[in-house]
Amino acid sequence: MRARVAGTTLHPVTGGSLTSWRDGDAKRAIVEFVEATVAEVPVEERVAVFDNDGTLWCEKPMPVQLDFILRRLVEMAEADEALRGRQPWKAAYQRDYGWFGAVMDAHYAGDDSDLGVLAAGVLAAHGGIDVEAFEAQADAFLRATQHPTLGRGYLETAYAPMLELLEYLTANSFSTYIVSGGGRDFMRPISQDVYGIPRERVIGSAISLGYENGTITRKPEPEFLADGAEKPIRIWSRIGRRPLLAAGNSNGDSAMLEFSQRTDRPSLSLLVLHDDAEREFAYTTGAAQALDQAARDDWTVVSVKDDWRTVF
Amino acid sequence: MRARVAGTTLHPVTGGSLTSWRDGDAKRAIVEFVEATVAEVPVEERVAVFDNDGTLWCEKPMPVQLDFILRRLVEMAEADEALRGRQPWKAAYQRDYGWFGAVMDAHYAGDDSDLGVLAAGVLAAHGGIDVEAFEAQADAFLRATQHPTLGRGYLETAYAPMLELLEYLTANSFSTYIVSGGGRDFMRPISQDVYGIPRERVIGSAISLGYENGTITRKPEPEFLADGAEKPIRIWSRIGRRPLLAAGNSNGDSAMLEFSQRTDRPSLSLLVLHDDAEREFAYTTGAAQALDQAARDDWTVVSVKDDWRTVF
Repeated sequence: MRARVAGTTLHPVTGGSLTSWRDGDAKRAIVEFVEATVAEVPVEERVAVFDNDGTLWCEKPMPVQLDFILRRLVEMAEADEALRGRQPWKAAYQRDYGWFGAVMDAHYAGDDSDLGVLAAGVLAAHGGIDVEAFEAQADAFLRATQHPTLGRGYLETAYAPMLELLEYLTANSFSTYIVSGGGRDFMRPISQDVYGIPRERVIGSAISLGYENGTITRKPEPEFLADGAEKPIRIWSRIGRRPLLAAGNSNGDSAMLEFSQRTDRPSLSLLVLHDDAEREFAYTTGAAQALDQAARDDWTVVSVKDDWRTVF
Repeated sequence: MRARVAGTTLHPVTGGSLTSWRDGDAKRAIVEFVEATVAEVPVEERVAVFDNDGTLWCEKPMPVQLDFILRRLVEMAEADEALRGRQPWKAAYQRDYGWFGAVMDAHYAGDDSDLGVLAAGVLAAHGGIDVEAFEAQADAFLRATQHPTLGRGYLETAYAPMLELLEYLTANSFSTYIVSGGGRDFMRPISQDVYGIPRERVIGSAISLGYENGTITRKPEPEFLADGAEKPIRIWSRIGRRPLLAAGNSNGDSAMLEFSQRTDRPSLSLLVLHDDAEREFAYTTGAAQALDQAARDDWTVVSVKDDWRTVF
């Protein structure tokens, strides 16, 4: 692989085995984008942002963090009988996972009528503890828990082709970031080990924090949900730059992919299409508008079935 | 200068001319802290945070950003006569700088009764424009404007000893951050050139942002004021680590300095004392409680008069 040298080459293209990617439009778009960037763009501007759930790792049958929260809700319901009749503790206690799925499907379809009920439970699940204690809980859960159906630990449900892409970008002096609708503080303890992304480059949803006498405590109130229009806002707040590459898989990622479409620089918007029921899961729920926009705006759609030689 | 090698040295101590620092307790504390850190602490944990106004650059007779805002308020009052009878436009239009000083002094003393009036004007001054346009305005102002009394441009009012400290820390693999009560987006365009701190490591106060069709726009509403207890909260939100070194100069920095006091790692809390009326300004308004806490908690007080050979 060689940089297309047009005038000054700022840095030679390196890395990029991408062996888990089949030859095709998606792989070609990635390599052409990286080569053009390396030829034209100063290192400090090479910013790439990635959604996490469904983009870097598996989000079915439920997002990893939802499993973490459900277990805590069950614990709470076991300790307090009154909670067993109230959502979302009731569904958690009865293992009625359909209720949670329906709330999330409705959310992605634009109906947030039950989201507040779910959110209140989610916020209560880990409210009132200090951030270092929360991190220890998240870390222990993530490193010890198996995915319910894939026969592997949660940390091994990261997609091999995306890990290669992250490595390829890093080798070419990109700064890679996670920009997730999931909780920022939930992912930070494992982001370096799993993705090679340091904790300070994890952007995600946040709950309000309080400070007193040297300790930072989680309050049971949201600060913001890093989804939809909030993704580009959080990217700007955190980085102060427009990214060159954005990757997502759902309607909640569209604004971020749109924000990263550049006319002044090489840019690439990647949308992962989950179409492989055999090796992973096949679904487009919550991705219909993003797929429409991909067709309209010439985003690169990555087919799990066709573009990935290996999934995990 | 040599690292105190106790067991494994992770990285040799380098840089650290610190020629603008006079020999004394402050310089000794800095060098001992850096040597201990380099001997004991992995690179990724070497985080140092700095307040900006009054810590990295001069904040008298008024904070640099206040000058930027005042000029915009005058412009607005010139364009709209009705504004000339309302604060803060009235004070700006009449060059009644005492009014602004009194509001800020009251704020640092814990009285925010007029802060809302000032804040509303501040928010209106640059509300409704997109973040890239705001950055261009801030950048042009900062690079072109002279300090009112020091006979130098605003960008040349950065303190030489603090620039040397930043360089010394960077040479020893610290990540340096600005954590300012001033506006994050105001400082970003010049942070690399003035301090060697890249824009993504500028943490500061933020106004609310909106996103639509690829553009991020400033709303005339605060998101948060990064002062007092909000400083450690913003450090955690942004970095996900406790710093090892924190430097400030006012009561608004105390929580950050307190948060950075470590028992498990070498740590250093620096409080700049403005006691040099001849070379800079002498004042402790808004710093009394911080100075009390410095004495109580063994923070290192840096005297401009005694510890700095050169100020600018």
